[in-house]
Amino acid sequence: MTSLHIGLIGTGYMGKAHAIALHAAPRVFDLPATPVCELLAEVDETLAVRKASELGFARATGNWHELVADSRVDVVDICAPNFLHKEMALAAIAAGKHVYLEKPMALNDADAAEMVAAAERAGVKTLVGFNYVRNPATQLAREIIANGEIGEVIHFRGRHNEDYLADPAKPHDWHTFRETAGAGALGDLGSHILHMAEYLTGRTIKRVCGQLQTVITERSLANGSGMRPVENDDHAQALLHFDNGLIGSIETSRVASGRKMGLAYTVTGTKGAITFDQERMSELKLYQQEGPSGRRGFRTLLAGPDHPDYAAFCPAAGHGLGYNDQKIIEIRDLIEGLTGRRPLSPDFRQARRINTLIEAIERSHHDGNWVELADA
Amino acid sequence: MTSLHIGLIGTGYMGKAHAIALHAAPRVFDLPATPVCELLAEVDETLAVRKASELGFARATGNWHELVADSRVDVVDICAPNFLHKEMALAAIAAGKHVYLEKPMALNDADAAEMVAAAERAGVKTLVGFNYVRNPATQLAREIIANGEIGEVIHFRGRHNEDYLADPAKPHDWHTFRETAGAGALGDLGSHILHMAEYLTGRTIKRVCGQLQTVITERSLANGSGMRPVENDDHAQALLHFDNGLIGSIETSRVASGRKMGLAYTVTGTKGAITFDQERMSELKLYQQEGPSGRRGFRTLLAGPDHPDYAAFCPAAGHGLGYNDQKIIEIRDLIEGLTGRRPLSPDFRQARRINTLIEAIERSHHDGNWVELADA
Amino acid sequence: MTSLHIGLIGTGYMGKAHAIALHAAPRVFDLPATPVCELLAEVDETLAVRKASELGFARATGNWHELVADSRVDVVDICAPNFLHKEMALAAIAAGKHVYLEKPMALNDADAAEMVAAAERAGVKTLVGFNYVRNPATQLAREIIANGEIGEVIHFRGRHNEDYLADPAKPHDWHTFRETAGAGALGDLGSHILHMAEYLTGRTIKRVCGQLQTVITERSLANGSGMRPVENDDHAQALLHFDNGLIGSIETSRVASGRKMGLAYTVTGTKGAITFDQERMSELKLYQQEGPSGRRGFRTLLAGPDHPDYAAFCPAAGHGLGYNDQKIIEIRDLIEGLTGRRPLSPDFRQARRINTLIEAIERSHHDGNWVELADA
Amino acid sequence: MTSLHIGLIGTGYMGKAHAIALHAAPRVFDLPATPVCELLAEVDETLAVRKASELGFARATGNWHELVADSRVDVVDICAPNFLHKEMALAAIAAGKHVYLEKPMALNDADAAEMVAAAERAGVKTLVGFNYVRNPATQLAREIIANGEIGEVIHFRGRHNEDYLADPAKPHDWHTFRETAGAGALGDLGSHILHMAEYLTGRTIKRVCGQLQTVITERSLANGSGMRPVENDDHAQALLHFDNGLIGSIETSRVASGRKMGLAYTVTGTKGAITFDQERMSELKLYQQEGPSGRRGFRTLLAGPDHPDYAAFCPAAGHGLGYNDQKIIEIRDLIEGLTGRRPLSPDFRQARRINTLIEAIERSHHDGNWVELADA
Repeated sequence: MTSLHIGLIGTGYMGKAHAIALHAAPRVFDLPATPVCELLAEVDETLAVRKASELGFARATGNWHELVADSRVDVVDICAPNFLHKEMALAAIAAGKHVYLEKPMALNDADAAEMVAAAERAGVKTLVGFNYVRNPATQLAREIIANGEIGEVIHFRGRHNEDYLADPAKPHDWHTFRETAGAGALGDLGSHILHMAEYLTGRTIKRVCGQLQTVITERSLANGSGMRPVENDDHAQALLHFDNGLIGSIETSRVASGRKMGLAYTVTGTKGAITFDQERMSELKLYQQEGPSGRRGFRTLLAGPDHPDYAAFCPAAGHGLGYNDQKIIEIRDLIEGLTGRRPLSPDFRQARRINTLIEAIERSHHDGNWVELADA
Repeated sequence: MTSLHIGLIGTGYMGKAHAIALHAAPRVFDLPATPVCELLAEVDETLAVRKASELGFARATGNWHELVADSRVDVVDICAPNFLHKEMALAAIAAGKHVYLEKPMALNDADAAEMVAAAERAGVKTLVGFNYVRNPATQLAREIIANGEIGEVIHFRGRHNEDYLADPAKPHDWHTFRETAGAGALGDLGSHILHMAEYLTGRTIKRVCGQLQTVITERSLANGSGMRPVENDDHAQALLHFDNGLIGSIETSRVASGRKMGLAYTVTGTKGAITFDQERMSELKLYQQEGPSGRRGFRTLLAGPDHPDYAAFCPAAGHGLGYNDQKIIEIRDLIEGLTGRRPLSPDFRQARRINTLIEAIERSHHDGNWVELADA
Repeated sequence: MTSLHIGLIGTGYMGKAHAIALHAAPRVFDLPATPVCELLAEVDETLAVRKASELGFARATGNWHELVADSRVDVVDICAPNFLHKEMALAAIAAGKHVYLEKPMALNDADAAEMVAAAERAGVKTLVGFNYVRNPATQLAREIIANGEIGEVIHFRGRHNEDYLADPAKPHDWHTFRETAGAGALGDLGSHILHMAEYLTGRTIKRVCGQLQTVITERSLANGSGMRPVENDDHAQALLHFDNGLIGSIETSRVASGRKMGLAYTVTGTKGAITFDQERMSELKLYQQEGPSGRRGFRTLLAGPDHPDYAAFCPAAGHGLGYNDQKIIEIRDLIEGLTGRRPLSPDFRQARRINTLIEAIERSHHDGNWVELADA
Repeated sequence: MTSLHIGLIGTGYMGKAHAIALHAAPRVFDLPATPVCELLAEVDETLAVRKASELGFARATGNWHELVADSRVDVVDICAPNFLHKEMALAAIAAGKHVYLEKPMALNDADAAEMVAAAERAGVKTLVGFNYVRNPATQLAREIIANGEIGEVIHFRGRHNEDYLADPAKPHDWHTFRETAGAGALGDLGSHILHMAEYLTGRTIKRVCGQLQTVITERSLANGSGMRPVENDDHAQALLHFDNGLIGSIETSRVASGRKMGLAYTVTGTKGAITFDQERMSELKLYQQEGPSGRRGFRTLLAGPDHPDYAAFCPAAGHGLGYNDQKIIEIRDLIEGLTGRRPLSPDFRQARRINTLIEAIERSHHDGNWVELADA
């Protein structure tokens, strides 16, 4: 068995999730190569050393440039703040490393395009971490749709709402400035539901009509030096027109009181429908126009070993997977992708698509009309 | 106690619901006047006589013109097919009768405008039957919002989806032709959710951007004489912009497999949110940003005697009201409205609003852009 | 069409529900005879006259003995407090009237036995109002079980929990004294779930082992004259052994915080299961060991026109029935029973069974062991 | 930082779960010592070597006696079939090792007593793996109860139902024989809910009255050599009487069609109630008699960083933990227990309690009466 040596940049929320998954994945799955936690970069040496110990990395550095250049690192895993994604990815690509990058890929479509071009020119492999599509219940949804079990898809409705900025007293952080975040809720959460829309239906969005809004127009600065405007959207929504005439809509919010992990979708077909809420991430509800009408209803399928990737975690149905388990599956996809067992998806090219869609929605809002998307 | 003599036209789905409610309402509520089931009209004398017996009406006629002209009738209650609403209402108004009309008021905005003008000129009183806003759980939602219990409203999301035409083998009926139905799902079901949007938020929709679609483009004729195009929308959705900057969206469908009474809404405020699904019509979920964060969550309120109009049905909470109970409350509103105890709402002028909105959404779809609504 | 003249005694919670249903039932169903609201009795003339007007009765009396003796009354409908059931029923029977009686039939088994004997000797017809078994969703449950759709029944679990006495500051009322209530939660609510157990499974309970408890051992008197002991159970539970080896258990409480109408059951069979909660009275969940295992799950059936008695209320599924609708179905059963179209069930003999079971559970608790039930 | 070297016996369902957790725990939590996956034992050398590679263990053996005796092993982690628990644990104790044992501890109370005595005599530390009590939502439930947030506990209802043997065509396996399993559902699943009853309420069960049943009385042998009787219970239920007068009941089944991970409980107090279902393991529902009665209802608390142990997995609420995450928390408890930072709980003495309760319920069933439990 070969090894793949990982260099991780960033140890916040997602960095820790990656570290947990990197250690667990080889135990859960029978992988074609072993991920080795080689090198960890943080903002300074002291923090890096401490975090390397905590997260089980062999070596540490306070300078991410060193990590990117390190000869023992095969894959650069970028969990740093979004506004650093581009610079780090380009440096990693330049060093000939494969890149595993947290979403959203970039702050805007132009940056994303530049990153795609660089990666393809360099011939390195890439994966962007849209973890919710790894959830067995959602993989099952895609399988049900692809099998035609609900007929032909006629409508997609999705939302990804949370309430992490619902409190107007919460000060600014990186989410609320253009320079550090790009789009607001639309970029942070909307990216997931836009990706989901095409992932689940297998269709391509051709036209969008969007509406964005900043609800809490100014917030205090974290350092106490007064109020400053919020520079991006608190919530957004869009009508969608896919190829083949499929229609749908999405909604996203970071001020949706009560929603903690409110990614939810309903996909309606000519012969049935599925509905899902990530707050109950191991349940999928399925309706089919079958059997006597008095015995029809939405069926609650509990994720189990008959569904994609579940059995590796637990042989018994209904025992439940968690947030971090999605990342473990993503690591499996990364390792199998890098060793040629499966395509890496979404890679930079596919992930840029989300930036393209986000910008189209923003432009539609700005111009007050529908925006067509160029052929992919 | 005075009496109000009712002349009912039509004994289908809604006619029967009205008859049940007319008999039950005086037992449930302490009414200022007693509704008397005076005269019933159906398409022929035989059917009228039979239905009058079944539905407890004193007299019967096979000619609705007689009913409208009958000196003992105070209120004409129109439950006939939608395409007859205008003619019947105008005749009733001409005869100086008050009019109680099932929704949707008319097939289009121009007809609705004509009806408003006639009623106001004649000085007769009118009520249009949007029964879902009578549901105690929904009245409670409005009360919570109006009290500011969820802060200032920042988002409205609503849908009214059913699946009564999901089966492509189902032949044409009155729903599927322009001449008999006007708009499709948007008129039949969308009318409810559009009305709900303004009812709950207390705000006025100023701009819409709509998208309509006929999914099953042709159906067989009921008489077996071949296929014919479906003339109106199977599903529709729209972005909404209210006054004061509130945004939201609605969706409606008659081909949404699995949804039987899928009127649902989520209203988000700056301090909380409510969410509701008419398939669980006696439950309202309420989230408030209050108390320690580890003890926050959506609370399931079961309709009970502390909520509007429930106690008249049952003194104990959680026992559940049903579809017909909403109509009983509507009859109470009718009787109290006619005797001056409360405003009749929505009257023709208010109900025409829904036709205006429907046409704006249709025009927006047709023109491919946002449509502004004139000031009401 | 003939008429059946009803004399109603008592106009509290249940009296009003009966009155609503008596007026609505002939509009909902095509009845073989029309119930006529003939005479109403209350504790004094003034109240009786007022209530007769409110509830739509032709005549009124302040003396129930007059009602029982009235020549124009065919059926005596007893909604008076439980401790009066026996005296009133015996008087009605003595006068040769049919008796329609609210549950629980009597305060104890001996009284119930006396009432059965009297009714059978006199040859009058009887019906006891266990309204929850009329709910279409529960009728559907019975149908599914009887059809063998979940195989052979192997387990019954039921509860009927409410919280109307959860507040220890709530003073005594008739529920809390032996003389006026007999058993406590077990009599008031347990009676429903015990009846349900045999109704749904079609089996007979042969042995019980019970446990009762008074949680709040004393309460204030309503008149402010100090504290007095609570004389019956606040909650109770029992293991059940049915004929043919079926086992199960029930639980009941009037101090179960949060439960408003907490009648719920799960019936498990060799090939599936059903589960139900009266707080969502129009939903039945059904699981069947059928189809691929990855597509199995509990299906939420929304009550609809394919299910027993629903279509008479509404032609569209999922629109929801309410508490009072159950009483309307019960009136239909009463009228059809009195006219010979269907058996009256539960009649006094069947309803006495519940008193027998309650006493067996109380005796089991007292003696600390299992109690056998004599063959019915 | 010190290390604790683990010797794992058995690599089935639970062995793999332990391995995943042993690798992940040091990344999730800041542990006082690092668990090292030292040695793995399986039934033969080949399998052991393969499994050691898969599960990340340094060395392998086909003889568990070698593992127990290995000088580099500090803790023997027993995930072998239940009937081997006693022999292996006694051998490990004899070798002076700490023992981490999967539940149920032993096949019967006498064996469990022997194991307790041996461990205490040897002075080794022990932990038995009742993983469901580690779930943050359940830890939160205990915290809410202990804080008095629902008042004084007045009722406990619990069940642990699954359907893994619902299919009568499923052949015998180790679950269905006395010699390999001891009790049936009661031992395998009932052990969890009995443990939960005392864990959550903080009370001690003093008396039980049980009822057991083998529903499918015979099954085929896996090797095809005919039918043989099932030797233990398929489902069981018991009334419980705790100290201080608390009452309750439990139920367990392995033939409960539709239940996949059906551990559920409702704990009712004088001022509120909590209810939980492990199939939605990251949700706890809480009702409190607080605030205006029209705003009361069960609140759905989504597990989050304000609740015990959640924040180590994810900083954002509602993102969901999974089955294996419970084991990660258990490993933290093991390591902290072995290093003296917290008591190990349940240790052998506490875990034996469950065997005692199971036997009392079995005896109660056999004798047909209540059984008192001796003071612990």
